[in-house]
Amino acid sequence: MATVEELKLRVRELENELIKCKQKQCAMEDSQSQELHRPKIDKMSAEVVDSNPYSRLMALKRMGIVEDYEKIRTFTVAVVGVGGVGSVTAEMLTRCGIGKLLLFDYDKVELANMNRLFFQPHQAGLSKVEAAEHTLRNINPDVSFETHNYNITTLENFTHFMERISYGGLEEGKPVDLILSCVDNFEARMAINTACNELGQIWMESGVSENAVSGHIQLIIPGETACFACAPPLVVAANIDEKTLKREGVCAASLPTTMGVVAGLLVQNVLKYLLKFGTVSYYLGYNAMQDFFPTMAMKANPQCNDRYCRIQQEEYKKKEAERPKVEVVQEEEEVVIHEDNEWGIELVSEVTDAELKAASGDVPDLPEGITVAYTIPAEDTPSGETVGETEQSLEELMAQMRKL
Amino acid sequence: MATVEELKLRVRELENELIKCKQKQCAMEDSQSQELHRPKIDKMSAEVVDSNPYSRLMALKRMGIVEDYEKIRTFTVAVVGVGGVGSVTAEMLTRCGIGKLLLFDYDKVELANMNRLFFQPHQAGLSKVEAAEHTLRNINPDVSFETHNYNITTLENFTHFMERISYGGLEEGKPVDLILSCVDNFEARMAINTACNELGQIWMESGVSENAVSGHIQLIIPGETACFACAPPLVVAANIDEKTLKREGVCAASLPTTMGVVAGLLVQNVLKYLLKFGTVSYYLGYNAMQDFFPTMAMKANPQCNDRYCRIQQEEYKKKEAERPKVEVVQEEEEVVIHEDNEWGIELVSEVTDAELKAASGDVPDLPEGITVAYTIPAEDTPSGETVGETEQSLEELMAQMRKL
Repeated sequence: MATVEELKLRVRELENELIKCKQKQCAMEDSQSQELHRPKIDKMSAEVVDSNPYSRLMALKRMGIVEDYEKIRTFTVAVVGVGGVGSVTAEMLTRCGIGKLLLFDYDKVELANMNRLFFQPHQAGLSKVEAAEHTLRNINPDVSFETHNYNITTLENFTHFMERISYGGLEEGKPVDLILSCVDNFEARMAINTACNELGQIWMESGVSENAVSGHIQLIIPGETACFACAPPLVVAANIDEKTLKREGVCAASLPTTMGVVAGLLVQNVLKYLLKFGTVSYYLGYNAMQDFFPTMAMKANPQCNDRYCRIQQEEYKKKEAERPKVEVVQEEEEVVIHEDNEWGIELVSEVTDAELKAASGDVPDLPEGITVAYTIPAEDTPSGETVGETEQSLEELMAQMRKL
Repeated sequence: MATVEELKLRVRELENELIKCKQKQCAMEDSQSQELHRPKIDKMSAEVVDSNPYSRLMALKRMGIVEDYEKIRTFTVAVVGVGGVGSVTAEMLTRCGIGKLLLFDYDKVELANMNRLFFQPHQAGLSKVEAAEHTLRNINPDVSFETHNYNITTLENFTHFMERISYGGLEEGKPVDLILSCVDNFEARMAINTACNELGQIWMESGVSENAVSGHIQLIIPGETACFACAPPLVVAANIDEKTLKREGVCAASLPTTMGVVAGLLVQNVLKYLLKFGTVSYYLGYNAMQDFFPTMAMKANPQCNDRYCRIQQEEYKKKEAERPKVEVVQEEEEVVIHEDNEWGIELVSEVTDAELKAASGDVPDLPEGITVAYTIPAEDTPSGETVGETEQSLEELMAQMRKL
């Protein structure tokens, strides 16, 4: 049996071990909490000190590039799709000090995403919006975040998505200032297009080809520029076999380079649009194989299948007619739009190669290297049949989408 | 005095507490080590499963873009400057599965860097190479890293830098395959240029203007294309007052967008060069204000001030003369080089605006929107005096650089 002395020794040993264990725990907690935050900053300062995360952005004013950089804090941007392009897009906006970000994605982080920027292996298994919010809050606690871990194309979620982009601004009840489409499929783009046409909401679309070597960004102003339903979506030709593009069952290739460039061009266009500097691009393509960057602009199609697009076009025409002539000259957009870009294309539900060529043939003035990307992959309607106008209810449209 | 029973009770309490403490510590270590690593992967696989970090890269083979993607693992790239462009460059190469990265930077992470991608607030105070290595190892443990926390322009470090790029390849003793200049000052670019001319080492240069809205990348093949001393460095004009550019005491503006685009274009060019696909660009500019991307190519200047550049030119000429005619047609570079781009410019040590214009005037065939960036800022030599040929020893050159 243990003596009192032996027991006392054991108590001292245990006490020492416990102290060491707790010290180590504290150190670990410290190093973890250190990772959590920099303090919030109330007002952007231009002061040139190492501790000011906004000094290099505020310098844009002194350089004569941006007149009022602080205004960035008043804007809300929704990013739909937080993958290879969307995550970097959200990070750039966060580092620029955007007021509020709404993130929409239903996907989980996987190791297979590690060939693109942003997500890290230890986040595998987390939802993309959750993982993104955690990282972005650490990077810039001054930004407000709202995340939605769902697929916007299902009916219930689409209704909620419409509501959040209508009322989820920095000041609750106000709409967001801009929606960025960073999704990788037709259905989600079409859902954003439908929502934006109905709400008259300006948005920008982005995309990267499945062979990873081309991409594009596009500004869509409902009623003014071509919407996603006005014309078949365009891509930058990448000199590859068309058959490998957007076919089912094909694992898409991707590169951090192409995704990073497209996100950079997208957010640059967002900054130019929100902070009013430089020339905002309507369509900018990126062909990585030849380092070729075609630009263009497309007017809305008066025969667009989307009813709200046609309504927006009428409203835009009225506004243009009412606008005093003097102001028209100052409107930057007016200068960029190609006046000879008017046409009427009908979207066909499923196309053969011949039909695709015929459809592409109708598109006038496509710059060299830009081609039609793909069309509505509606396999349940007979081949070649023209899709009816979207006078059909949202429910029907969504039901159709779910089937695809 | 404590009884045996009391002491036994105390021992049990302490043992329990210690067990709990150690359990908590284990859990914390687990969550940290979870953050540490994914297991290493011996062989890149094309298998399309969520857990394969290389599936989307290996898909480039199936898409017909890259013939042998696995070859990426055999290459070593040195990144000099781990700031706004260099850090993203290193991350892209890491995610692409490069064999080995050598990182050179003497700077520390500051909160003032948070307006660019990659570094996070909790890393403030760490050396950039240390912070970068930690993050990059977590992202891809298959990559080998070698970091050097020093300024390459001091004599001792320059000697070490020369040694490491000569022998620091994946297989120790072999040279690196490519050097990427992601530095932000003239002296460091000149040091890389000096080293690469002496070693006949191919490198790529990158740069972003101090007003944050333009940038460029450039491929330099000693003896073949213009080196950094052959011609005044070029930039994409950004429609801003020249006086705000590269003046001392001015805090440079920067944007995550421009830096991300330049890093993306740079690494894309690296991938095309190493993995032999697409067209490798000799010079690609990015003007963010107008979304304008000028390209060009420049031949080496036979009157270049760098003696090793002229030696490399002689060797290149010899090789060209010896090469069978049939092969010449297959050499991609030959096609791109503009044959009418031959000239001889003398670098002047310090220029007035008039002299700068005169110098720029001598440069033939600069595409619209590209201008001369700046010249050697050697303030200790009389204005307008021509800098002597760099027959001077490396020591003298470096001593001069340190003075600047």
